Amino acid sequence: MLEMLDLSLSLPKKEASERLKELSRSVGALQRAFRDRAIASVIVLEGWAASGRGKAANSVILALDPRGYSFHYVEPRAKEEGTLLPYWGLIPPAGRMALFGRSWYHDAWRLGDEALFADIAAFERQLAEAGVFVFKAFLHIDAEEQKNRLKQRRKDRDATWTLEPGEWRQNKEYDDNLRTLERLFNATETEWAPWTVIAAHCGRYAAVTLLEALSDAMTARLGASEGSCKGAFLPETTVHGSRLDSLDYSATMKKKPYRKGLAALQKELHILQIEVFRRKLPVILLFEGVDAAGKGGAIRRLTEALYPRTYEVVPVSAPNDWERAHPYLWRFWRTLPDPGNIVIFDRSWYGRVLVERVEGFCRDDEWRRAYREINEMERHLLSWGAAIGKFWLQISPDEQLRRFESRRDDPERNWKLTDEDWRNREKWPLYQEAAAEMLARTSPPEAPWTIVATDSKRLARITVLETVRDLLVARLQSS
Amino acid sequence: MLEMLDLSLSLPKKEASERLKELSRSVGALQRAFRDRAIASVIVLEGWAASGRGKAANSVILALDPRGYSFHYVEPRAKEEGTLLPYWGLIPPAGRMALFGRSWYHDAWRLGDEALFADIAAFERQLAEAGVFVFKAFLHIDAEEQKNRLKQRRKDRDATWTLEPGEWRQNKEYDDNLRTLERLFNATETEWAPWTVIAAHCGRYAAVTLLEALSDAMTARLGASEGSCKGAFLPETTVHGSRLDSLDYSATMKKKPYRKGLAALQKELHILQIEVFRRKLPVILLFEGVDAAGKGGAIRRLTEALYPRTYEVVPVSAPNDWERAHPYLWRFWRTLPDPGNIVIFDRSWYGRVLVERVEGFCRDDEWRRAYREINEMERHLLSWGAAIGKFWLQISPDEQLRRFESRRDDPERNWKLTDEDWRNREKWPLYQEAAAEMLARTSPPEAPWTIVATDSKRLARITVLETVRDLLVARLQSS
Repeated sequence: MLEMLDLSLSLPKKEASERLKELSRSVGALQRAFRDRAIASVIVLEGWAASGRGKAANSVILALDPRGYSFHYVEPRAKEEGTLLPYWGLIPPAGRMALFGRSWYHDAWRLGDEALFADIAAFERQLAEAGVFVFKAFLHIDAEEQKNRLKQRRKDRDATWTLEPGEWRQNKEYDDNLRTLERLFNATETEWAPWTVIAAHCGRYAAVTLLEALSDAMTARLGASEGSCKGAFLPETTVHGSRLDSLDYSATMKKKPYRKGLAALQKELHILQIEVFRRKLPVILLFEGVDAAGKGGAIRRLTEALYPRTYEVVPVSAPNDWERAHPYLWRFWRTLPDPGNIVIFDRSWYGRVLVERVEGFCRDDEWRRAYREINEMERHLLSWGAAIGKFWLQISPDEQLRRFESRRDDPERNWKLTDEDWRNREKWPLYQEAAAEMLARTSPPEAPWTIVATDSKRLARITVLETVRDLLVARLQSS
Repeated sequence: MLEMLDLSLSLPKKEASERLKELSRSVGALQRAFRDRAIASVIVLEGWAASGRGKAANSVILALDPRGYSFHYVEPRAKEEGTLLPYWGLIPPAGRMALFGRSWYHDAWRLGDEALFADIAAFERQLAEAGVFVFKAFLHIDAEEQKNRLKQRRKDRDATWTLEPGEWRQNKEYDDNLRTLERLFNATETEWAPWTVIAAHCGRYAAVTLLEALSDAMTARLGASEGSCKGAFLPETTVHGSRLDSLDYSATMKKKPYRKGLAALQKELHILQIEVFRRKLPVILLFEGVDAAGKGGAIRRLTEALYPRTYEVVPVSAPNDWERAHPYLWRFWRTLPDPGNIVIFDRSWYGRVLVERVEGFCRDDEWRRAYREINEMERHLLSWGAAIGKFWLQISPDEQLRRFESRRDDPERNWKLTDEDWRNREKWPLYQEAAAEMLARTSPPEAPWTIVATDSKRLARITVLETVRDLLVARLQSS
């Protein structure tokens, strides 16, 4: 989830302070509305050590009526570490708020215990089912930034009191901690208590984004129908500042190294396909992306390398009536590879959270729960032994226009361009928002998305083939 | 769950055949209603080998319009064992039914893999969320009955074709299989796909009960509001034939052995309490039961043995307004023992599924989800290291009347008897039904209920003290 954040995001001082003022008013009003509607709120603020949780918490607290909330920074007693015992008693009554600057996630992250993760998910479901609003934010900084901040703090006499044991160690074991964290997110990401992850290199940006996300979530909770399942509150989006918005499209590749690289990779893939068949490894490769980003071309370069008997390309379009009469994922389960075979999906089950979401082809709750359904399906396929490669192909808006125009003007290729393509282009921001949320919510460490900037077709194809090769090699080695 | 079934239940032939006829008509009509409402159904029939699944499946099939269902007895291909792959494709479209005589539970039970259990729970949740009705029944026979049936079958030439590999082995390892099964139930028992467990020593009783349960569940599903969470369908009850209905109240105990036994047990408990304190073991003992069953007396015999500084008796009555403003379990979390202490609950969190259910003090969905909430809480407390003892004290209706009258006629004790006691007595069957469901749904192997027949107070007290002693000894040995 975190790797999809653009950590370079920042806000100038003046803009930040204006927006903070406005958001504070909004959150304050929402707090009163929650009190009047007798909704209890639990707000969890977690993050890396030195990520600025204290300041972020302050920005929330300043927005609140002090008579209506309590702030908790819980340090469990011995014998209660790694349990929920210190926290249950602190759940606020109807109409009140509890902010946790240090919550049940603190021990869970440190201990990395899956059973505790499951207990936390159950705990939060119980709260939501009882009508409690649960909001969880995580402030993200990278290892280098953390190191610099910790160094800085050590020098600053006024800040030393904020130092906590384990901070340097967290930095030294940053990568391990990141992996545990992703498992933790995976286990505790639910429709009724979704995570909001925030890029926190710029404190102002973090504070504004946190308040904005909180305000959005509270607004959505107020709007949620009384009968909505388990108090699910469905904010517009819970991903702020996607890396997708700041992709670098400038890299290119010359023809000669491309040809040479392509030939070598195709040769490797051919050999790998045989090994995949011999070892009965089921392989799933799927391609999504904006129109004209080059899915077809990339898939062709891949299949050129493959022996036809043990691979299949499955093009996915809108479901027919028979498929619609079944649960959404049903039709995909029926096209999965036999062990040893490779299935390449040209568009996929992710249509639910892309085109169906944007165009309103399914209900709100249907695409929202699809993230979890898809994660569950892919996890099951991984545990079966499958290799899964997922590619998001992205071009810049300018390049898309160029490609559309070139297709339009070429009588041989203008069949590839439809009115729908132009209409989708007008909805560019909506599709990008949907893609950003998808990329964040469906990138568990064991089945991550590969984002490919495809303004250079050559570079894109090489990247795709390399990634497939690396995936197969890794999967064959580990099986 | 299974140990709470009364396996001696049976039905005479004539009664059975009349009820089967009637239930068949009802299920047939429900099938047509499901078709008209375009609800897909998944019906899982599992059970021990030789428990009569085939005959039970037949009784369902005979009730159905053959154009509307398909029957599946799935044997997974190699490489697909222990996965959901063979099953997804068999999920029926809207309006149709699929019966699974052998389902995803077959491999799951054999393999005992918790990750697969979790995937199954997710799979069924996905189905329910997509509007599919999921009904699961399990036919239960004990080890001896299974052995006899397998022997019988081996002799019967006409039945040998029904023999399957692994049946004798299942019988030889019956206890292990039972433990795995209880874990499996625990992981896959949900509001939207609850288990119906059926005593199957008498095939006629099993068939009638199965059709009755299916008819109840389908009726409830039709009645469930469109917006109900995840297609939860909440049948009146999913426990049929509780052992509670056939308790033996006749045993007694003479005064002398009682006095001697009591003194010895109290001495043991005193020593154990010191060890509990020394080892910082948190101990939770809770007492529920029908009115006048002797909770107070049993608790007193227990506390007589204990040193007062490290135990506490918590009497539980209706929640006050402040408690009501919080999630239901909140008040109980606040009264849990410190490590090393013993807390004795005189009535407990189980009030939710007893008095609150019967008297309508909470909403239907609230008590129904409480089974899971309570199991989750107790599991968390066990993983923290707590010892949990749960006692259901039960007297016969006649004995209750005797005790009520004796209280009424004794000026020293008539304060103990209220109008409410008389009112509750009138609702005896409702309270017994609630108790039976509670005992079945909240008896995981690691925190089972102890049912105590208390017509003989002496015997009851000795049983309680012995059970507490055994619990503490076992828990101290394993920690």
